[in-house]
Order: sequence, then structure tokens, then C-alpha cells
Amino acid sequence: MTDYILRIDCPDEKGLVHKITGVLFFNNLNVERTDEFVERDTNQFFMRVAFSGNCDPEKIEDGLRGILPNGANIDLSKKEIKDVVILVTKEHHCISDLLIRNEFKDLPINILAVIGNHEVLRSLTERFGIPFHYIPAKGTDEASRLEHENQIHELLATYSFDYLVLAKFMRVLTPSFTERYTGKVINIHHSFLPAFIGANPYRQAYERGVKIIGATAHFVTDDLDEGPIIFQDVISVNHTKTATEMAAAGRDVEKIVLAKALKLVLEDRVFIAGNRTIIFE
Amino acid sequence: MTDYILRIDCPDEKGLVHKITGVLFFNNLNVERTDEFVERDTNQFFMRVAFSGNCDPEKIEDGLRGILPNGANIDLSKKEIKDVVILVTKEHHCISDLLIRNEFKDLPINILAVIGNHEVLRSLTERFGIPFHYIPAKGTDEASRLEHENQIHELLATYSFDYLVLAKFMRVLTPSFTERYTGKVINIHHSFLPAFIGANPYRQAYERGVKIIGATAHFVTDDLDEGPIIFQDVISVNHTKTATEMAAAGRDVEKIVLAKALKLVLEDRVFIAGNRTIIFE
Amino acid sequence: MTDYILRIDCPDEKGLVHKITGVLFFNNLNVERTDEFVERDTNQFFMRVAFSGNCDPEKIEDGLRGILPNGANIDLSKKEIKDVVILVTKEHHCISDLLIRNEFKDLPINILAVIGNHEVLRSLTERFGIPFHYIPAKGTDEASRLEHENQIHELLATYSFDYLVLAKFMRVLTPSFTERYTGKVINIHHSFLPAFIGANPYRQAYERGVKIIGATAHFVTDDLDEGPIIFQDVISVNHTKTATEMAAAGRDVEKIVLAKALKLVLEDRVFIAGNRTIIFE
Amino acid sequence: MTDYILRIDCPDEKGLVHKITGVLFFNNLNVERTDEFVERDTNQFFMRVAFSGNCDPEKIEDGLRGILPNGANIDLSKKEIKDVVILVTKEHHCISDLLIRNEFKDLPINILAVIGNHEVLRSLTERFGIPFHYIPAKGTDEASRLEHENQIHELLATYSFDYLVLAKFMRVLTPSFTERYTGKVINIHHSFLPAFIGANPYRQAYERGVKIIGATAHFVTDDLDEGPIIFQDVISVNHTKTATEMAAAGRDVEKIVLAKALKLVLEDRVFIAGNRTIIFE
Repeated sequence: MTDYILRIDCPDEKGLVHKITGVLFFNNLNVERTDEFVERDTNQFFMRVAFSGNCDPEKIEDGLRGILPNGANIDLSKKEIKDVVILVTKEHHCISDLLIRNEFKDLPINILAVIGNHEVLRSLTERFGIPFHYIPAKGTDEASRLEHENQIHELLATYSFDYLVLAKFMRVLTPSFTERYTGKVINIHHSFLPAFIGANPYRQAYERGVKIIGATAHFVTDDLDEGPIIFQDVISVNHTKTATEMAAAGRDVEKIVLAKALKLVLEDRVFIAGNRTIIFE
Repeated sequence: MTDYILRIDCPDEKGLVHKITGVLFFNNLNVERTDEFVERDTNQFFMRVAFSGNCDPEKIEDGLRGILPNGANIDLSKKEIKDVVILVTKEHHCISDLLIRNEFKDLPINILAVIGNHEVLRSLTERFGIPFHYIPAKGTDEASRLEHENQIHELLATYSFDYLVLAKFMRVLTPSFTERYTGKVINIHHSFLPAFIGANPYRQAYERGVKIIGATAHFVTDDLDEGPIIFQDVISVNHTKTATEMAAAGRDVEKIVLAKALKLVLEDRVFIAGNRTIIFE
Repeated sequence: MTDYILRIDCPDEKGLVHKITGVLFFNNLNVERTDEFVERDTNQFFMRVAFSGNCDPEKIEDGLRGILPNGANIDLSKKEIKDVVILVTKEHHCISDLLIRNEFKDLPINILAVIGNHEVLRSLTERFGIPFHYIPAKGTDEASRLEHENQIHELLATYSFDYLVLAKFMRVLTPSFTERYTGKVINIHHSFLPAFIGANPYRQAYERGVKIIGATAHFVTDDLDEGPIIFQDVISVNHTKTATEMAAAGRDVEKIVLAKALKLVLEDRVFIAGNRTIIFE
Repeated sequence: MTDYILRIDCPDEKGLVHKITGVLFFNNLNVERTDEFVERDTNQFFMRVAFSGNCDPEKIEDGLRGILPNGANIDLSKKEIKDVVILVTKEHHCISDLLIRNEFKDLPINILAVIGNHEVLRSLTERFGIPFHYIPAKGTDEASRLEHENQIHELLATYSFDYLVLAKFMRVLTPSFTERYTGKVINIHHSFLPAFIGANPYRQAYERGVKIIGATAHFVTDDLDEGPIIFQDVISVNHTKTATEMAAAGRDVEKIVLAKALKLVLEDRVFIAGNRTIIFE
């Protein structure tokens, strides 16, 4: 029923909802749903409109430019499946969940390829008819990192993708990597950020004796584990769980959190607003 | 910042959001937030607008009548504290939570009076400066019920209230009672409805061996435990909990669920749509 | 570290924990963990002991018979992977989750075979090297049901399995079927039982306007949807979700609930006590 | 039914459960429930036994000393209501919840007194017949802190209390204060620790853009916000919530988390093990 998703992001001013919906109304389009939010700290206006009908996107965009403040971000897309490349290391739980969802169309996703710095997930990936590329990392020094990332860049350049998903990719990416794909890289971190930033969050959680563990899906920025959070969830644990058992229990949260975050992003529901996200569910 | 809440409920047609926001724009009002939903089964349009500015409510309502379909429900209220009367029996956990919230203004509520069919909660209620009325019930036969309800009606007639809250009022109200206050009576039921309708839900839950118990706040209709649900929440239980211990654990859920449901209703966020609710949080 | 799981279920009497642990102590075994519970309604004693060391299981069992009341259930097993056959229809989410966990040893499970009354899940199943058997159902009358079930029985007779898992098997099994495998058949039901028993629970949930939906894993008994509950979980929904969208959102809960219930059962943590379960997590 | 709670904490060795339950059995006592756990990292054994019957506590303790390793902690208490003093500042939600539970015996608690560094909660406290002591803080320098804490010590010395509860006491206590009451001071922190340590956690949470906020009840040690965690819970939030609204939403979690943690502690279910807690629910 919904043919288009319109997303607008601009400084707030009086009458925006009226004017924006007017452009659609006078083009004889059916608004299926509108969501709108003004962030008071920054006076920024965010709006998502799902609408149906026949339209000339360029004409709509011109109409909107005419009534919106200068510099407004306007994004008008036909609702569709998004193309995604996935980076993995050795853990299977997130990638297998995504391969299944891709196969059975549980998400509006089209997995173009999986890239691993280890080869262990090749068999699984290829069973689902998805190409697997093995790009081993040589070391953790600066030069090795850049060489590894350059090889990934070269491969990525052969794909036209909308998002890059780090599905338990256990290498820290350098800013020079992440800067190229601002707002396009999504990571799953195995703690309820900002608790337990960095390595071994389940070990940290065990040692701190927390009664709740969780997972966080976020956009990747230059600052490790500091990017805008998309979705988080938690589960309860108790003293009987070792760090290893916490990690096992946490895997189910990780895969579900990543899938839910991707659903939100792929359905064009997520706006990045500084280091926060505005999400119209 | 928000001065008014506008609520509209009418059959859907093209351009409603544009037209409605137009009435506000041309009256020079600031829209703070809009929420809108179309229920596809029934083609019904629901909208809530929070706006600020100086306005003549009658003029706004006239403007809206001019652009809305016939028979549209329009409700324009200055955001304010709502007047509430509370019915109780013996259990203290919900009423005490509401008395505290009333005292410290945690909810936009003004408790006018508490009516009990037992007297045990008088001392607590009066400690918070709220009048307590004791109207004992004689029996459970039809005549006794009607007599009891008539006494309550007579007392209620002396109060001008927006909502009547059943905070663990353990008598079943007759349709003749509930019909007088359609959409105005809110109950807290001690199960995650529709599981465990009727009496002793915790005993039922124990016997069924469920691993989750809960509570449901809902509008009261003629059908016992069948009215539109406003809010529900649950907690986990296990085999070690007796029915009595489940009831004790459930009390915290009940009081929080009732308070959250009231917050939504008192902030004019809840629309009744048949036997369902549309809630703009 | 743990070599054996001992499970005892008998009428309670004074000194049971002391006597049972004595048998293990005097056989020079290391108790790793004990869990014990007395159900007061029935005066039934349940105990699970994980222990390590070298032992002659027969001697231990004899020792226990000597100190336990007549008719005590004693189950002493080397902790190991359990053999499972899975029944499916068309939905993929539970079976794919189990196939992945089987492949990567996330559960102590060995899937022997998958039996489908439709063929759509053959390709997926075989990709994981598991045999898929297609046994179509002819009709829903008594004779067709029995014929279908007899074919399944014949096939099951060729497998030596510990548990039979209904992973979204959408046919009601007759009591003559379920009686053969008492305590061995585990089902995932797509509602938080006892709410929404029977067909189309998500449609029922939509119409009732609930704010929470869920899933229930339970042992199958003669009474449809009435067997002992092993695990349940829920998620929040709101008015924007159609019945179809609720079903989609519910799938993630279903698969996780089934996997968690299986983990508990396969690790010998679950006792059936009438229509309830005692679970030592 | 349960008359005594026995708690034991000692290095693990073979046969402990057998020997401990033997002492009770040969004294003709009825074990109602045992819980036992061995922390593998430290090889420490923890056990809680609820039992009934007539006993000479000294004789039981002597019996236990005879079979336990040297230096074992043995705590045998008649199950009873615990005496508690509460420290508050200005926020009412935790103290009011505790006053209600104290009044209606929802917790095994006897509130001896409330001490405030502001006077705003006097009226509420006295309405429940509990003495309120106002001890204002002069400043935040070292000398003022010590003077303030000394006044509190002097007052506390007049009460014989089991636990000291910080129910939103918004001053940091010095180590010299907390050292006097090791394992006896319980605090509620308004974040899911270790996220958002220190001041203004809701403001921090807003700025980090988290989708989940929470509360943590913990024992107080010298290290601010670093003591052993007893209980935690969380709620979901989204972009529409300001820091102030998060704080409001968080209050309900805080009061429930504190009450649940107190229930566990007051029922003698919590062992402190280094910086972690072992809890037999």
C-alpha cells in the first residue's frame, strides 16, 4: 500500500507539517502515516511520511524545496529492499540469523556478500548462496591494519551497497575506514553500552557482578563503541553464570538486537541526530 | 510550553493532516507535536496535536468542523490536572501509590475522594487529606448490588470528576452502573488479560503453572474484564512461588501498571476504538 | 567437570538431602551442585544433583533405593547430548534456529531427522546434512488423522530419540499419538498461554487489543495447549501492529522461547509435577 | 513454617552438604529448603538452609563447627523482621514506598527512623508514625563532611539497627563513614551500573542516547558506586524523552528495585562474595 517513504530533517519553524503535507495533498497523494518530532535542544525538526499514489519524485522534491528552510535534508525513496555487505570474524550467531532472514525475506535485506577475516563461516555462508570473501588480517600494528582495511575497501568498491553490517567483526576499524561510510556502518556490541566498553564485556560484567547483561546495535563512528545507539536489549543473569555462560546467554540477545536494529534502519525509520537517534517505529 | 491538546477521531479521507494543521497554522499557533494513526480495518483516523499559543477554542473548533467529515469527534482541552474519584476495597498497594503520586504531583491527578466498601483504608487516605467515604455492601444478590451501587451513584453525583478509578475494588459492577460512565471508569485487573479472567487469577496462574504473571489496566465496559486494554506488564515467576507469593509479587506490577495507564489517560493520550485503544505515547 | 546428573522425585520425608548426599559422599563422589524443592501441596520432593568422579551407576542406584521411600523415581544419567526428532509444517523460524544451534553445538542436541507435513523446509534442512522426511496429511477427518499419525509412528520407530519437538507443527495430534510419548513431546505455542488457546492466536490478540504478546513452550499432553509449561516470554506491542505484524514480531520470541525450553529439558533440569514443571536453572 | 535460617560460607570440600544436613537431621529438625553454590574461581562454598523444629541454636552451631573447615562463617537466625534506619535527601519516591511497605508489613522491615539532610520529607515520614531527624549538611569540603557524618554517627549510635538504607540520599559518604558499617549499608543508584557512574546519570543517559535506562541497588563500600550489586532493573526509553522525563520514568524503577533488593537482604538471601553477591531467591 505504501509506495514511498519521505524523510525530512531541517530547523523547525511554524507550519512545517501543514506545508509538507500540503505538497503531498496537492499532488493527489495518499498519506498513510506521518511521524514528526522536534528536538528541543537543537530546534531540529524530523519527519517521516509514508504515502502512496503516482508521483514524479523530482516534482515532489522541488515542491518541498520551495517550502522548506534552506539546507533541509530531503530523502524520498521508493520503499524497497536494501543491499547490504556483512563483515564477520568467527562467531556464527548473528550472521546465521541474518542469512536465514535473508533467505526467507524476514527483513527487507539483500545480502550481497559476507567478508571474513577468518574462513570458518565460509561453509555456512555459501550454503545460502551468498559469496564469501576471506581477507585475513596480518597483525594489529598500524601498517597491518591499513593494509587489511585497504583490501576490504577494494573489495567493497566492487559492490554497490546501502549498509555495511559488522556482525561480530572483532577487529577495531580505524577512523580512516569508518569516515568513508558515515551513517552506513552498523555494529552489534555485546554489552548494554555505555557499560563495558572495549574488549571482553562479559568478563567485565562477571567481575563487576551485574545482574543484567545486554547488547547494543549502533552506528559506527570514529570513536569506538561511542556511535549513535539504534537498539538495545538486556537479560537477567545471576551468580551461577560464569563469564562464558553469560556470553552464551548473551548471544541470543545480540542476534535479536542486531536484527531489530536492522529492521528499523532498512525501513527508513532511523534519523541520526548528533550522537543520538530519532526512531519512528 | 504546550497549552492545548487537540484530539480528533473521524473517518479517514485524503488531506486530513494538511487541513487540520492548516487551521492551527492560520490561527498562528505553534504545533509542538502531532501523532496520527489510521486504523485500516475501520478506516478511522485518529490524531492528537499538542500546540501552544493564544487561541479562541471556539474559533478553532469551528474551523475544524468546516474541514472535517460530519460526525467527527473533536476534543480541545487546555492541558490540565484531571479530577478523579477512586473506589477501593481492602488492598492498599494501588491506592497508596496513587495517594503518594497525588501528594507529590507525580501524575496530573487531583484525587477528590476515596470510596471504600470496607473501612480499612480510611486512616491511610485521611493521612493524605483526602475524604474517605465508607459505603458497605450488604450482599451479592441483585437487590443488594443495586442498592449499593445507588448509594455510590448518589455520592458520585456530589463530585464533578473526569475519571473513576477502581484501585482494587473487588466487587463486580453491574452494567447499569458502568453504562453511566462509559469511557470514564478504569480498572486494574490482576492478570495479563485475557488470561485468568474472573476471580482468583493468581490461584488460577499457580494451578496452570505459568512462568509469567501480570496485570492489566483497562476501561470498564458491561463485559467484566473485557473492556479496552490501556496498559499491561508482566513479571517472571517460577515453581517456588505459591499462589500467595505470586499475589505478593504481582502487587508491584499492579500498582505500576495502573499508574502508567492513568498517566496515559490523564495526559489525553488514549483513544478508545471499539474494544481496542489507540495510544500516542 | 560434571560427569553425572542425578534426578530424584519422591514423597518428602525428613533427612532426604542428608541421606542422598551421603550415598554420593561415601562413594567418594564430588557434588558440584544440588537443587532441591518440596512442593507443599503434594508433599513431593524433587532433587537434582550434578556430581563428578568415578562411579558404578548401578551401585549408586542401589544405594539410593536403600534410603529412599518406595516408588521413588531415580534417574541417573551421564550428562550428554540428547537425540531429537523435529516435526514441522511450513514456518521456518524455529527449525532454522534449531538447525543452526545443532550445527554449531549451541545446545546439547543431536537432530536425527526432520519430518514435515509439507515439503517446503526440505531444502533448508538438507543444507545442514539432516534427513528430511515428507509425510503429507490427507485430511482433517478422524481416519485421515490416524493414517497420517500412523505413518509418522512408523517412521519414528526407526529412530531412537529422547525427545520429539513440534517446531511449529500446525496439526493437532490425537491423544492416541501423544500418549505414546508422554513427557517426551515439546511444543511451541504462539501465545502466552493460557491466553489465546487454539487457532490464530495473533488474530485473537489483535482483536482483544492486548499490549503484550508472547510464546509458550510446553510438554504436550492429551489436552491441546494444556500441558505443563516449560518457558514463556513476551514482547510489547501497540495499536500500530496488525495481526500479521504481531505474528512477524512474535516469531523471534517463539524461536528463543523454544530454544530456551529445550536447553532446560536437554540439560535434565525440568521435572514434570502434575500439570506444572519444577525447573532447576 | 520456617523457624530458622542457617547461612554458611566457607572453603569448599567434599561432603559439606551431607555433613551440614546431618547436623540438622540428627537434631530432629525439618529442612524446608536448601540452596547451595560453589564459586569455582575462589572455591568458596555458600549455603542457605531454611528449617523448622525446636532447637538449641548454640548446640546446632557447635555441631556445625565440628564438621566445617576452620574459619567458616556460620549465621543462624530466627527468621524475623529486621530493624532499619533510612537516610534521605529530598526525593520522596523511595522513602514513601518503604513507609507504605513498613506500615502494611509488605516487607520484613521495621523502620526505626528516617534521617534527612533536608527537612522536606518530615511531614510524610511523621504521618506514618516514624521519627524524622533533620541533620543539615553545611558544605561539601572535608571538614563539613566529617562534621555532618559525625552528627549522623551520634544519632545512629542511639539506634540498634541491622541495616542502613540510602533511599536517594544525595551526598557522597566518606570511607570513614562506610567502613563502620561494612555490609550493612544499601544504596539505590539511578542507573544500571556500571553505566553512568557519578552525578546526573539521567542527563548522561540522555546525552549518550541510550534506549534503556535503569536502577541498581547495591551495598555501599569505600568506592562510590562500586559496591556489590544486589538487584537491577531497566525500562525502555526513546528519543521523545528529555533527561527530566527519563528521571521521572526512572523513579518507578528505582523504588521497585530498592524494595526488591531489601526483600532479598532482609530475608537473609544475600551473601557478599568479594565484589559480587550470591543470592538464593
